[in-house]
Amino acid sequence: MGACQSFREMCDREKDTNVRLSLPAVCVVWQTAMIILFGVFIRYDHESDAHWVEHRKHLNLTDIENDFYFRYPSFQDVHVMIFVGFGFLMTFLKRYSFGGVGFNFLIAAFGIQWALLMQGWFHSLDYTDGKIKIGIENLINADFCVAGCLIAYGALLGKVSPVQLMVLTLFGITLFAVEEFIILSLIHARDAGGSMVIHTFGAYYGLSISWMLYRPNLHQSSRLQGSVYHSDVFAMIGTLFLWMFWPSFNSAICDHGDGQHRAAINTYLCLASTVLTTVAISSLFQKHGKLDMVHIQNSTLAGGVAAGTAAEFMLMPYGCLIVGFCCGVISTLGYIFLTPFMEKRLKIQDTCGIHNLHAMPGVIGGIVGAVTAASASVEVYGHEGLVNTFDFEGKFKDMVPTTQGGHQAAGLCVALCFGIGGGIIVGAILRLPIWGDPADDDCFDDETYWEVPEEEEEGIPTVLQYNNHMRNKDIAESNFTMESESRARS
Amino acid sequence: MGACQSFREMCDREKDTNVRLSLPAVCVVWQTAMIILFGVFIRYDHESDAHWVEHRKHLNLTDIENDFYFRYPSFQDVHVMIFVGFGFLMTFLKRYSFGGVGFNFLIAAFGIQWALLMQGWFHSLDYTDGKIKIGIENLINADFCVAGCLIAYGALLGKVSPVQLMVLTLFGITLFAVEEFIILSLIHARDAGGSMVIHTFGAYYGLSISWMLYRPNLHQSSRLQGSVYHSDVFAMIGTLFLWMFWPSFNSAICDHGDGQHRAAINTYLCLASTVLTTVAISSLFQKHGKLDMVHIQNSTLAGGVAAGTAAEFMLMPYGCLIVGFCCGVISTLGYIFLTPFMEKRLKIQDTCGIHNLHAMPGVIGGIVGAVTAASASVEVYGHEGLVNTFDFEGKFKDMVPTTQGGHQAAGLCVALCFGIGGGIIVGAILRLPIWGDPADDDCFDDETYWEVPEEEEEGIPTVLQYNNHMRNKDIAESNFTMESESRARS
Amino acid sequence: MGACQSFREMCDREKDTNVRLSLPAVCVVWQTAMIILFGVFIRYDHESDAHWVEHRKHLNLTDIENDFYFRYPSFQDVHVMIFVGFGFLMTFLKRYSFGGVGFNFLIAAFGIQWALLMQGWFHSLDYTDGKIKIGIENLINADFCVAGCLIAYGALLGKVSPVQLMVLTLFGITLFAVEEFIILSLIHARDAGGSMVIHTFGAYYGLSISWMLYRPNLHQSSRLQGSVYHSDVFAMIGTLFLWMFWPSFNSAICDHGDGQHRAAINTYLCLASTVLTTVAISSLFQKHGKLDMVHIQNSTLAGGVAAGTAAEFMLMPYGCLIVGFCCGVISTLGYIFLTPFMEKRLKIQDTCGIHNLHAMPGVIGGIVGAVTAASASVEVYGHEGLVNTFDFEGKFKDMVPTTQGGHQAAGLCVALCFGIGGGIIVGAILRLPIWGDPADDDCFDDETYWEVPEEEEEGIPTVLQYNNHMRNKDIAESNFTMESESRARS
Repeated sequence: MGACQSFREMCDREKDTNVRLSLPAVCVVWQTAMIILFGVFIRYDHESDAHWVEHRKHLNLTDIENDFYFRYPSFQDVHVMIFVGFGFLMTFLKRYSFGGVGFNFLIAAFGIQWALLMQGWFHSLDYTDGKIKIGIENLINADFCVAGCLIAYGALLGKVSPVQLMVLTLFGITLFAVEEFIILSLIHARDAGGSMVIHTFGAYYGLSISWMLYRPNLHQSSRLQGSVYHSDVFAMIGTLFLWMFWPSFNSAICDHGDGQHRAAINTYLCLASTVLTTVAISSLFQKHGKLDMVHIQNSTLAGGVAAGTAAEFMLMPYGCLIVGFCCGVISTLGYIFLTPFMEKRLKIQDTCGIHNLHAMPGVIGGIVGAVTAASASVEVYGHEGLVNTFDFEGKFKDMVPTTQGGHQAAGLCVALCFGIGGGIIVGAILRLPIWGDPADDDCFDDETYWEVPEEEEEGIPTVLQYNNHMRNKDIAESNFTMESESRARS
Repeated sequence: MGACQSFREMCDREKDTNVRLSLPAVCVVWQTAMIILFGVFIRYDHESDAHWVEHRKHLNLTDIENDFYFRYPSFQDVHVMIFVGFGFLMTFLKRYSFGGVGFNFLIAAFGIQWALLMQGWFHSLDYTDGKIKIGIENLINADFCVAGCLIAYGALLGKVSPVQLMVLTLFGITLFAVEEFIILSLIHARDAGGSMVIHTFGAYYGLSISWMLYRPNLHQSSRLQGSVYHSDVFAMIGTLFLWMFWPSFNSAICDHGDGQHRAAINTYLCLASTVLTTVAISSLFQKHGKLDMVHIQNSTLAGGVAAGTAAEFMLMPYGCLIVGFCCGVISTLGYIFLTPFMEKRLKIQDTCGIHNLHAMPGVIGGIVGAVTAASASVEVYGHEGLVNTFDFEGKFKDMVPTTQGGHQAAGLCVALCFGIGGGIIVGAILRLPIWGDPADDDCFDDETYWEVPEEEEEGIPTVLQYNNHMRNKDIAESNFTMESESRARS
Repeated sequence: MGACQSFREMCDREKDTNVRLSLPAVCVVWQTAMIILFGVFIRYDHESDAHWVEHRKHLNLTDIENDFYFRYPSFQDVHVMIFVGFGFLMTFLKRYSFGGVGFNFLIAAFGIQWALLMQGWFHSLDYTDGKIKIGIENLINADFCVAGCLIAYGALLGKVSPVQLMVLTLFGITLFAVEEFIILSLIHARDAGGSMVIHTFGAYYGLSISWMLYRPNLHQSSRLQGSVYHSDVFAMIGTLFLWMFWPSFNSAICDHGDGQHRAAINTYLCLASTVLTTVAISSLFQKHGKLDMVHIQNSTLAGGVAAGTAAEFMLMPYGCLIVGFCCGVISTLGYIFLTPFMEKRLKIQDTCGIHNLHAMPGVIGGIVGAVTAASASVEVYGHEGLVNTFDFEGKFKDMVPTTQGGHQAAGLCVALCFGIGGGIIVGAILRLPIWGDPADDDCFDDETYWEVPEEEEEGIPTVLQYNNHMRNKDIAESNFTMESESRARS
């Protein structure tokens, strides 16, 4: 017992979670770098610049045809998903709600700035003046880019320091931008809702990092690795805002008109179907048929992930229901069987179960996209519709749907490679003992990085104090007595 | 005592709440049926189909004139009301938050699919090919349709099994679609925000079912039929999202242009006025003038319900304030006097008080609609405005406002009949002892259908453990002592 | 000790918090006044009136060019900020969540009605018929106007009665409308997001009232002037909805097209930057580098406040990041050093720290606006863009940017004067002993004005009861024993 104690003390001493220098330094230096890079590179595009009024007259447009009005409502929905959806989904742990929603906030706020730069260099660079021109679509894409890193955070929730998360985000955004450029621009795969680009990449990126950071003795702090009643209700806020706004996520950067319209309908149907099969499987595999909140909070969202790539294709309403049906089943079974298996055998600790919510449904989404693209026909899309939907223009004007299907499959492979490869490299960097990560005993505990309010000055549960209306003196005394008694017994 | 015990045990044995077979079966079979029916019947409409680009050129439209851009922001607001609004409003019970928000999620996800079919057959069937063509307006209508069933759930909250809720939804949606077809298409009543079609129908449907499922001994579990501090704050999330987005609810399917614009303004004003009179009555009837959270959570919404039918009419801003004023008073008085009366005398147990929030304001809304329609004039609306607002076209082109008023009143009667009649029939079906409904003692308790997290492994309140920093051994011991002491005394 | 006790008892006796007559009276009488004034003055404008269909044809517009479609999504976001954002941000106190979110609801619902009238008389009066014509922009402005009063409430949270809040709102809205008319119409300053008009005014209005209502012995109830774990998570809901929707707030009433587009981008960037410096300073000044939830909940929003005035100017993306950087630093330092100083030395008790969140960033925003306006040039804006952005039309058509800069600075001074002057006058009114404000001991406690649910009938913590499954008799006994023991010891 004494030896064990001293060994653990040594471990704790090694793990210095004081981030008082590193966290401020990272935040201030990187933010300063952003200011300089934005100063050099980033300007308004022609729809957000004050010259728009002249530009508009030149093109004979009305004000409402500014891209802002096509995309702003979807943008705000996506924004809610990133900050409230992902944030609150991660408040389910009994004592890590501050870290869940707070660190999500921090890394998303940094990530969107870095993403505007990285994605801008690849996609929005104006070669006439060397500037990145940004508008509302860039903001949406920056939010999308951050989503990949937030998914990765889900696997690591409670086990990493905020400094590690900043490093994870810096590299994650960089990898994302490169991978996205290869998949969308070089390979010419379509991925409106990001099943491959965002979810597959993000999930395998996070899982690989988690594998690199494996903690064999983590069960010691398992006391905190669960939920309480209220934290599960908080997490439902995240679930529902993700679920409701997913049609906006998948339609946000689709083509104007029927593209956005169809993507919203497809995602809506896919998600509805997922809820029913999630409930079915959750009930079937629990004693007495009781439902498990973990499944309801997570697996119900799998349909939205899987509808991503094919969102703007003619997936047909019944096709969406089928995809949703399968995802609900697979994702819930994943929580029941695969997550424990991965932790024991593959040494991958996946706090939020992102393998079931993002990785598998993301791969399914990529496959569904490839199949749907390969089977597209002029009868279903119309000639102009086909060109429009798959962007068979410019140097890709001779492509046909079957080739497009192959390109989609290639895109999926690239996302997998970048996720796994990038995760292993970044995981190796994050193993360096300089990032202030917590000891096993301090995992899943907000006390490590947050000033947590004391429940009550006197250490007596709130409820007692309020109902019995004891005077303060009594409380102090009875508290003392309880403590001394329990000590005396040990 | 012994006899009573054994009788209760027998009752409990009769009530088998194990839904491990029935719930998965219902979910999987019905979802499969949805896939087949969607495959046979449902296709994209011309604004969400890939042929839109050709269609658009044919009609000389710009992309922004796709119905998607007129209705998508309102759709998402309605979506939030259905899933977060209704869901969180039902989390107020101290130990039924999972069931409130979770079952709301389940039945809404099933209901929107079934509603797309039922409403589609009546309103969106393309007779050239026998297919239902869906677009964004169908999604909004499906959400509306589900709202009726969620209102009914409010009366039954905590007293029914998820299987019963699925049955309630299946029949509720079916009745809704028929009733809506009669009121809107046959009778040609206008009901943009659904005061009659949604709220009156839904509320009386739920109240009739509750009357059929009357539990005379329910007071035994009344220990759980109340709120705690935090659950009341959770419920305020539901209240506020319903309150804020109600203007979107009432304007979502109004005519483009002034119709949507006016409906939003009318509802906004109606709701503002309701808040003040709710607070006034709540304070006036409580000891020391203290406010009651039940009233603030519910009665403040009554104005939105009552503004439904007349939302797109020229109700005038002061008219809206008057309607809101009255609804706040009536709804709050309903909670204070009518709900206890209904439980004791009419044997109607109404957990959420939907009679005060939906039934009475719904009927008021129907009457306001009839009066406003009957008093419409060319001076106020303009000739084109009158035709536009009341849709005096086709076979109704010779109608005049006074006749329209009569039709509105007829519509209200139809809604009432369908609600009460349908509720009694469905209530009779739900009394069958095969649905896994809970015993009286298990009502309002999430333990019945959910895996509820243990508060703390050792049974000691969280707060104690965190503040006293006892070692595990101490906790186990002190816990044991407390338990053994209390047993010794009994 | 005895004398002190009797003195405190006298104080408590003087403070009668029974608002059973005053609160209903104020609500009913003022709401009735609203109905009468709306009847006399308020009508629909030409875009929400049924005559729109004729008007539209006359102007050769399509339905989508109704102002509703330009502004409704932003309006709903602003609406969420007012009711959920401000409301939940004020739930952070351990026992004042009902008052935070509930009174916020009440005064906002009253305020929007009074604001429609006050702002209407100044800005939307149709001189041909003496009526105020309202449309969606008036609703947004009414929400803005209310924001000023809700900011002021932040300083007074937990220390005033609902009747005092109604009075504060009545005068606050009135002062706001006058101040806004002077700044925007007479001085011709631009203030799209209201850094000066809303935040500077609102904050100094609240701080002056708090100074007038100084409570020297408030520390006695400081036991309740803190947060608990769950209340901090609730407050994060408010923080995030404010943060996410702030781009909508600052762009809601900007010019159609590039104005709204640019304002959204500017605010988005400003806020992202603020998060990083807030985290940096919070960590730097806490022991062990731990983050403080108060800073994360509040200072992260300072960038949005400061981006208000210059939101639609060509602030440039890097300029936004710089403004956000500074605001995060200043606001967090304000919470650490200035708030304690103000309470001790200046006798200003600022519950929510609005001086750090609204006052300082508001002034910064005003200054940034003046500098940006003064340095505007035809090269950057284009000729038409300059006229458009700064509204150099009508009697201001000869203005140049440098003059505009001076006018902006003058506007800031007016906002400061109205805030401080108005606050002192209204504070004097609120000191009258007729408003039912709480005694020092009853501050920050919902029991004073709300029916608070008992935690558990027996006075035993929920967790014990549920886990040990004691029978009722045991609970009563053990409870009795605990009470008697603790009393015996004292």
